[in-house]
Amino acid sequence: MRFEVHILGCGAALPLPGRNPTAQVVNVHEKQFLLDCGEGTQIALRHSRIRMMRIDHICISHLHGDHYFGLFGLLSTFNLLGRTRALKVYGPPALEGLVKAHEAANETVRGYPIDFKVTNTDAPEVLFEDGTVTLESFPVKHRIPTTGFLLREQPKEPGVKREWVRKHALELTEILALKRGEDVVRSDGTTVAFADACHAPPAPRSYAFAADTRYWEKVAEAVDGVDLLYHEATFGHQMKERATKTFHSTAAQAGRIAAKAGVGQLVIGHISARYEGAEELVEEARTKFANTIAAHDGLVITVNHKC
Amino acid sequence: MRFEVHILGCGAALPLPGRNPTAQVVNVHEKQFLLDCGEGTQIALRHSRIRMMRIDHICISHLHGDHYFGLFGLLSTFNLLGRTRALKVYGPPALEGLVKAHEAANETVRGYPIDFKVTNTDAPEVLFEDGTVTLESFPVKHRIPTTGFLLREQPKEPGVKREWVRKHALELTEILALKRGEDVVRSDGTTVAFADACHAPPAPRSYAFAADTRYWEKVAEAVDGVDLLYHEATFGHQMKERATKTFHSTAAQAGRIAAKAGVGQLVIGHISARYEGAEELVEEARTKFANTIAAHDGLVITVNHKC
Repeated sequence: MRFEVHILGCGAALPLPGRNPTAQVVNVHEKQFLLDCGEGTQIALRHSRIRMMRIDHICISHLHGDHYFGLFGLLSTFNLLGRTRALKVYGPPALEGLVKAHEAANETVRGYPIDFKVTNTDAPEVLFEDGTVTLESFPVKHRIPTTGFLLREQPKEPGVKREWVRKHALELTEILALKRGEDVVRSDGTTVAFADACHAPPAPRSYAFAADTRYWEKVAEAVDGVDLLYHEATFGHQMKERATKTFHSTAAQAGRIAAKAGVGQLVIGHISARYEGAEELVEEARTKFANTIAAHDGLVITVNHKC
Repeated sequence: MRFEVHILGCGAALPLPGRNPTAQVVNVHEKQFLLDCGEGTQIALRHSRIRMMRIDHICISHLHGDHYFGLFGLLSTFNLLGRTRALKVYGPPALEGLVKAHEAANETVRGYPIDFKVTNTDAPEVLFEDGTVTLESFPVKHRIPTTGFLLREQPKEPGVKREWVRKHALELTEILALKRGEDVVRSDGTTVAFADACHAPPAPRSYAFAADTRYWEKVAEAVDGVDLLYHEATFGHQMKERATKTFHSTAAQAGRIAAKAGVGQLVIGHISARYEGAEELVEEARTKFANTIAAHDGLVITVNHKC
């Protein structure tokens, strides 16, 4: 089943041609979550192969413009394209008022409902859950209240081994019982043990998004063990003071968080406009956490199980 | 002296790759006026050769998103780039509140002052004037209150013919008097007549921007005789009903306004996403007004005197 992160923008506060402000779409089993929505996100979506009308969840980490100025245009475009599907928007308390102030100014009659949910910047919280996926927010540490987001597949049921089905001519009710983790006592008095008859299911995969944040060890706790972590790395270590002052991270700090959290892979983003490419930042992060890559606009990353 | 219109975006409500929402910079003798500021304008500015920090006037025609959603990002970028120069912003009454609501949410400390001026949707009004240029707004007819904008060079002084300066050994005070339109009586009793000694100055050039508007004859009155008119032509005539219903114009209607107003040249824009190119719309407008061209993103048009 698909679990992919599509990077639409991974620049910092100053957008540049070819480096959009922050936005990414996470596809978990064909459910699409837009994480942040910087200016121009709707254009980046059109450049991508993402079916943008299928985005049903928008998560806004915080109200710095490079993370949400594209929201109003996207909501308007959804309307112009005739959307009727409900949309869930998660973000800081002021977000709903801003959306409504624009809609009042535009005299918009929106053809689809938006369910706004305020994120919690004090503690992790489940925002949405269904049979496929859980969406959580978790606090990060930035100049204004900010959260990261975490997407996890739901645990899968164990699978019953085919040869056991054949060998014991298992019936459907027996298979279902085994999938629930039960041992089955048959009419002849024999027992089919769950531990023998079933495969362990693959562990659920998980992805965490932590932007923008300064180096903060609680982030490592929140993203503990995820398969893929996107962590901001606005600066290199030679600009550590500026990183601290502006509540951003260096690449080395992003690597340290990844190492502490024991994640599978680290992708760094939110690269300052002062860096033409991200090579030196990747090298720096790798001194702390080897399995690091850099985001770039258009990159699609598959979330794989940790080795 | 330079008088140029730089088209940054000329699409309609749905932005497409390669067709940004409305924005243009008018350079009048190195003074730069940004007319409308759709989403992505700051990126279009970076793609252009325009020195964006030299934009001191931003005019917003109305509060449909495709005409102003890029304003917040641009104002933020000005701040991040260390702007201290004052900025004038002209637009509908709700605009200042929206800017301030975003700044409050962002906790922005802006390093430059903005002077907001509310536009008048009932009658033409001078918004700004100096020795070089006059900026006016004028009402147009759209679904929500909207104005167009008109930029005129200030009248130039007449020039004294070089051969007259030489022939009569004119002194500076005499030249200045002639430039003021006076005849000069010399100490020997002879007269140097203004009409003989001076060139008529070139007529001041003018540019009008009329988007978004339905066909409305008062627009022709407001832009009477301008050298260059940008008029919206969202649809072709086969969609006239839709144009009327949505308070937009057809290309033929744009041509009729240009003909009525006796302008020098017409440039049509705000092209609906349903048209891949603008060829058929230009052909249609030319049936009413021959000297018509289509806008496209990146086009730079010199404002020339009418023939």
